[in-house]
Amino acid sequence: MVRLTRSIEFSTSLRCRRGDLSDAENERLYGAAARTHGHNYRLDVTLRGEVDPATGMVFDLAELKEILEREVMGRFDHRDLNTDTPWFEKDAPTPENFAGVIRSLLREALPPGLLDRVTLHQDADTTVEIVEDPA
Amino acid sequence: MVRLTRSIEFSTSLRCRRGDLSDAENERLYGAAARTHGHNYRLDVTLRGEVDPATGMVFDLAELKEILEREVMGRFDHRDLNTDTPWFEKDAPTPENFAGVIRSLLREALPPGLLDRVTLHQDADTTVEIVEDPA
Amino acid sequence: MVRLTRSIEFSTSLRCRRGDLSDAENERLYGAAARTHGHNYRLDVTLRGEVDPATGMVFDLAELKEILEREVMGRFDHRDLNTDTPWFEKDAPTPENFAGVIRSLLREALPPGLLDRVTLHQDADTTVEIVEDPA
Amino acid sequence: MVRLTRSIEFSTSLRCRRGDLSDAENERLYGAAARTHGHNYRLDVTLRGEVDPATGMVFDLAELKEILEREVMGRFDHRDLNTDTPWFEKDAPTPENFAGVIRSLLREALPPGLLDRVTLHQDADTTVEIVEDPA
Amino acid sequence: MVRLTRSIEFSTSLRCRRGDLSDAENERLYGAAARTHGHNYRLDVTLRGEVDPATGMVFDLAELKEILEREVMGRFDHRDLNTDTPWFEKDAPTPENFAGVIRSLLREALPPGLLDRVTLHQDADTTVEIVEDPA
Amino acid sequence: MVRLTRSIEFSTSLRCRRGDLSDAENERLYGAAARTHGHNYRLDVTLRGEVDPATGMVFDLAELKEILEREVMGRFDHRDLNTDTPWFEKDAPTPENFAGVIRSLLREALPPGLLDRVTLHQDADTTVEIVEDPA
Repeated sequence: MVRLTRSIEFSTSLRCRRGDLSDAENERLYGAAARTHGHNYRLDVTLRGEVDPATGMVFDLAELKEILEREVMGRFDHRDLNTDTPWFEKDAPTPENFAGVIRSLLREALPPGLLDRVTLHQDADTTVEIVEDPA
Repeated sequence: MVRLTRSIEFSTSLRCRRGDLSDAENERLYGAAARTHGHNYRLDVTLRGEVDPATGMVFDLAELKEILEREVMGRFDHRDLNTDTPWFEKDAPTPENFAGVIRSLLREALPPGLLDRVTLHQDADTTVEIVEDPA
Repeated sequence: MVRLTRSIEFSTSLRCRRGDLSDAENERLYGAAARTHGHNYRLDVTLRGEVDPATGMVFDLAELKEILEREVMGRFDHRDLNTDTPWFEKDAPTPENFAGVIRSLLREALPPGLLDRVTLHQDADTTVEIVEDPA
Repeated sequence: MVRLTRSIEFSTSLRCRRGDLSDAENERLYGAAARTHGHNYRLDVTLRGEVDPATGMVFDLAELKEILEREVMGRFDHRDLNTDTPWFEKDAPTPENFAGVIRSLLREALPPGLLDRVTLHQDADTTVEIVEDPA
Repeated sequence: MVRLTRSIEFSTSLRCRRGDLSDAENERLYGAAARTHGHNYRLDVTLRGEVDPATGMVFDLAELKEILEREVMGRFDHRDLNTDTPWFEKDAPTPENFAGVIRSLLREALPPGLLDRVTLHQDADTTVEIVEDPA
Repeated sequence: MVRLTRSIEFSTSLRCRRGDLSDAENERLYGAAARTHGHNYRLDVTLRGEVDPATGMVFDLAELKEILEREVMGRFDHRDLNTDTPWFEKDAPTPENFAGVIRSLLREALPPGLLDRVTLHQDADTTVEIVEDPA
């Protein structure tokens, strides 16, 4: 079994706030992250599978790039998570929640069983990883 | 003459728009940057001077950290450049303009002649640098 | 199950020597590392758990930072492992042993079952990782 | 159980082509990678095992460096994968296939059960990892 | 005066050999670099100029990206410097010579006086920089 | 005029203390740096000169590596600046002073006029640079 990882970066703004809480409650829960700010997110998308002996590939990197362009860059790059996407009206875009959204989008877009994990680096010191169960 | 550089990072949102242009004109001028997005900015602040033979320092790093905390982190970290600061109502926060604002703040806050340059990294591939004239 | 990683850096000196061996024997065993030297260690602390649906967090990052400040930075930053800490009188502070000490401290300080792994980067080319058993 | 990783870099040229396909077919399959090009590969070699209580080591890093010098640097650094090595006459040196060759060489050269994984970074955005089964 | 830098990466193969020397003489002169090998080159292209008060830009980054795509990526990415370009038949593609070729191409392609310097990183430890004279 | 930079890393321990001050005075002056600690220093050594048209080089990198091995690695790697070198009995090894010592050693060891600057990175956020006057 081999893992293949492709990494991309995108520039996004956000604030961590739950829709059902007041500003003061959000500030207490999320601290400075409750204010509007932004990140250059770095995302590692890891696939797993057998290497196709005919091509020497787990998956065609050109096809993976296209999927990441459409599913991730097209939705999140130079966008605001709270106002430009439908996922964070009720829930806050913590790195855990944001990684969860990306994981759902990629599980949909990729052949079943191919996604191994998504790893989302919010800044130089903070990373979230969601690993799929083995089949 | 010796140069001493201290680097910091902060997480900020922005959109590039001139106050006197329509949304369509701003989009034509700034492309995707006209939309609200965000960056982990990395800033290198470089001082220049003689090394004080009594201390072996150009400037006390602890004091420099305090100045950067107050003048840069306190104003820009987890903030929005357009709505939370007074500098970008008329002008757009291009990296050139943002570096210019930071340079002015640091020239004010530091002893005269000490600032050598500010270098602002907007993302992994885009950097702006403003160098002071030699005295 | 989601993993959350926080990374910190600290500046520490050390020499690899077993208390029961002579200088010549230590030099034979540890080579140049038997001499006093130093590193900017980089430590990745990874937690694992369910995401709390009320907060969107595996664990509060602010609380994690406080724990790392107290348990790791406070003990090891700008210190000497051999003379300023109690763990390396008999054993040498190899990266394996040092990572083991950090892991014990963090298992104590964190709620049971939360620690997933510690990853200690001694320099650009040498890394040690200790992974906890699944519960 | 502890993992110890040593990282090295080497400068290598290659083109992705299967020996049984025409140039046009290879270009269709591998795109730009079908042309001769090159990379600074970065390789992470991870070992796993108990820490020897007498030495505080999983494996002697000096011995590991020697093995990597002989098995990897000596064969691939400043070489062309297609013309200077025997592995890519029939198969293309995709990152998956190249990582597979390195893994075989290191399994042979290391004590049984010691190799945990090889992780091959082809460029800043593309990584392949092969993990050994637990014993 | 403000400097604006854009960075790109490309994957290229080469060997350092002068056309008028034998293989043995080239090996003596260039060592391992006389053999075919490859790099992920990283190039920083720095422009200098006044900030246009109407746009807040030294130069339009979108236009700079297009020029770099055409003049650098299109000529050198996934190519061999010796066989796929006209510049290294007689001279060897040392980092100094290669940076000189890139500098000439960019001086031609950019408005006069705009180029400040090209900085070419051959690998993690080797960099060449060519700075233009002040006008 | 072309600049050629070679980068190296070394692991060193130190404490910032002036020989003529008490421990309390040194702690007041240097803070935590007055305690024994350590760094993975990264040093960029930059040469400047004409490119020799016969070789395409400013200076032979193999010869530069040898000089850095002898003058820098041999003296400072896996050493303590205070006890294993003669330069910091009276003065403290601040990054400014340490860069000054390295600069003197390299000016002695290199042909006159070749050294352009030394840039010493103490940790991820602190850098000192000493630039030579133009001839």
